[in-house]
Amino acid sequence: MITETPMPTATAILDAIGRKQMSALDVVEACLERIAAREPTVQAFALLDPERARDAARRLETAGGTGPLHGVPLGFKDIIATAGLGTEYNSAIYRGHVPGQDASVVALSRMAGGIVLGKTVTCEFANRAPGPTTNPHDQARTPGGSSSGSAAAMAAGMVPLALGTQTSGSVIRPASFCGVHGFKGSWGEISYAGTKLTSGTLDTIGIYARCLDDIELYRAVLTDTRPVKLQPGLQPAPRIAVWLSPFAHLAGPGCIEAVEAMAASADRAGASVRKMELPPRFGQLNDAVRWISAYEGARSLAWEKSFHRDRISPDLRLGRIADGEACSPEQYRAFCRLAERCRIEFDAVFEEYDVLLTPASPGEAPLGLTHTGSAVFNGTFTALHAPCVSLPGYVGPTGMPIGVQLVGRRGEDARLLTLAAWLEAAFLKTR
Amino acid sequence: MITETPMPTATAILDAIGRKQMSALDVVEACLERIAAREPTVQAFALLDPERARDAARRLETAGGTGPLHGVPLGFKDIIATAGLGTEYNSAIYRGHVPGQDASVVALSRMAGGIVLGKTVTCEFANRAPGPTTNPHDQARTPGGSSSGSAAAMAAGMVPLALGTQTSGSVIRPASFCGVHGFKGSWGEISYAGTKLTSGTLDTIGIYARCLDDIELYRAVLTDTRPVKLQPGLQPAPRIAVWLSPFAHLAGPGCIEAVEAMAASADRAGASVRKMELPPRFGQLNDAVRWISAYEGARSLAWEKSFHRDRISPDLRLGRIADGEACSPEQYRAFCRLAERCRIEFDAVFEEYDVLLTPASPGEAPLGLTHTGSAVFNGTFTALHAPCVSLPGYVGPTGMPIGVQLVGRRGEDARLLTLAAWLEAAFLKTR
Repeated sequence: MITETPMPTATAILDAIGRKQMSALDVVEACLERIAAREPTVQAFALLDPERARDAARRLETAGGTGPLHGVPLGFKDIIATAGLGTEYNSAIYRGHVPGQDASVVALSRMAGGIVLGKTVTCEFANRAPGPTTNPHDQARTPGGSSSGSAAAMAAGMVPLALGTQTSGSVIRPASFCGVHGFKGSWGEISYAGTKLTSGTLDTIGIYARCLDDIELYRAVLTDTRPVKLQPGLQPAPRIAVWLSPFAHLAGPGCIEAVEAMAASADRAGASVRKMELPPRFGQLNDAVRWISAYEGARSLAWEKSFHRDRISPDLRLGRIADGEACSPEQYRAFCRLAERCRIEFDAVFEEYDVLLTPASPGEAPLGLTHTGSAVFNGTFTALHAPCVSLPGYVGPTGMPIGVQLVGRRGEDARLLTLAAWLEAAFLKTR
Repeated sequence: MITETPMPTATAILDAIGRKQMSALDVVEACLERIAAREPTVQAFALLDPERARDAARRLETAGGTGPLHGVPLGFKDIIATAGLGTEYNSAIYRGHVPGQDASVVALSRMAGGIVLGKTVTCEFANRAPGPTTNPHDQARTPGGSSSGSAAAMAAGMVPLALGTQTSGSVIRPASFCGVHGFKGSWGEISYAGTKLTSGTLDTIGIYARCLDDIELYRAVLTDTRPVKLQPGLQPAPRIAVWLSPFAHLAGPGCIEAVEAMAASADRAGASVRKMELPPRFGQLNDAVRWISAYEGARSLAWEKSFHRDRISPDLRLGRIADGEACSPEQYRAFCRLAERCRIEFDAVFEEYDVLLTPASPGEAPLGLTHTGSAVFNGTFTALHAPCVSLPGYVGPTGMPIGVQLVGRRGEDARLLTLAAWLEAAFLKTR
């Protein structure tokens, strides 16, 4: 059952604050109430900071100002540094760790008038070992990972916006499982400064929101650029490529149907929709992500693995770190070259198509909390450095949400969001 | 006048420790003595840590062990985090800042038996505003920047190995000015985790050493891979491209002569040496580096510029940060695309050539300490993500060193070092 959540969009909150229908403090209190009600089950937060959030809201009221996030409470995945606020990476090594500085994305959020409400649960170092978070739609199921808390907090209506990160499938998969809008930008566009690094060539910041307009709003804040007004009505019917990937046989119930439902609604709305193939080498990009992230990750975590190896989970020690130690530099470089080649080939796809439709996850969130589900439909696009959106709206066979992934051309993040708005309107119309 | 420095190579130190001719503590004391003698003039260190260095040396003696850097004292540019040791980025904002964790490169160094002797002076945030360091060959001249202290500490014989970073020309230019061996690896090969980020797509760790063997030794430690034995004698005479860049008119006295002297000695030793041209678009790569590093840097420093703007130098505020705020996302992306295209074209150069010879700096270190000299001969190769070496040995018209830059193919760092060894042998033979 998809539960209704009372949290309005950030855009609606900004409007209400602008019209003085509610104050920034009212918004913070509404979030805290919702958290009080749902947190015992959902466990989305690693750390809440109600007092400083209230202070920030009061200061905003006094100061006035018209920042683009004026009064919007935010959740940050707990691998993102927050000045004066615990940042523990869900690692025993970092219990009590309090950075003195904000990560770039946090500072930009604060400067825009956003309010840091708390830190959301992450898998250990944004890898696999999960925290306690449950799926707000079914507490027996995983919310996905590694941005578990941010996706779940959104789905439970606890915050209007939250940030995650993706190295293989850590933003888009949880968005699909939790039935929220998720966005991973083109690699390199949002600064990773102050966010715990795993893979310098893959790690990408992502946004969770209740609508696409909110994503564009926050994307502009995080890139320190002007937002684009998403006007799907002005968009000519898009040319849509459907690519089910070489991993379609791993799709569970509802997965392919979700993509097909979205494609069918686009077709009915006038889009051109065609199944597409990519060269077989694209089928190796999941492996590329596995080995590149392991090779780089084992080195990025040199301090932790050298001096605190016993406090690293077996998941990470025997998984990514062992992989990274086993991977030869030649293998690593071959995968880097493959990814680069495919990125350039993938750019060319967008001469024929506007957007690619593909599964966001293998289906509904799996039962159990010890594993965050498979990223088999995500790694390819992380390797491609391409912008991705998970659009919610489809409901799977057992009533759980399933997202559909839209992929755009590198560097054309705002355009992807406009196309996503067109597709969403078409989907909602024909549902 | 090029001063003679008494510091032996890391390889010689390791050998002497292995043969029990000296202890790790002896080496630390020798470094500290040299520093005591030269530091009042050179001012290479932001922070020295003699007591913990001695402790580490004693612990190594007790524990034994055969790490590849067993007992080698090291200097780290002060934008690289050292657990429990001040890391101030030469920024007023970070006075007294002491990280709790090591950067990846520091942890890997310690695990290899290296000893953290201290932090070397950096320009503010590895940008332009210089520290007090002077050129060990002439205290009226800049050592170059932003890795000023590491290059100067090497040249003054204070340490056998030191680390720097390069975003435009911050490793290779100081190596040239100070007359030491400098190396910037292929981008992405050495983890930047724990090093203060400016530009996620350009920042690269670099090594200063007294010989090429030491660079390969340390490169293997930092990439957590096996070192290659550099055997220039086994190398067939290389195919050498000489490229003076579109900026040759900015070369000062000795600059082109240094490249020509190296080329002539290679020719005499049997190499094929040809002048090469690159497409005109390569002439825009310096601009690409300027605007990409500014665009990304202004965002990476979001916390500093939002909350401590008054403690940022005018150099940085009115330079890189203002540039980054002025650069449009379209401009930024166009430069990113240009750099990517040129990288792939540059790979193809190495089907015809083994190594490219080009100036490492516009000539001798300029007089004055308020500016660290021009990176006009460096940005191109930072944008290309290519491995670069600055080979010392040439002496300019006023007796100051001038390096020659060798550039290799991306991902073939050890091969570049082997080729550099061949070139150096040829140069030393015919000098």
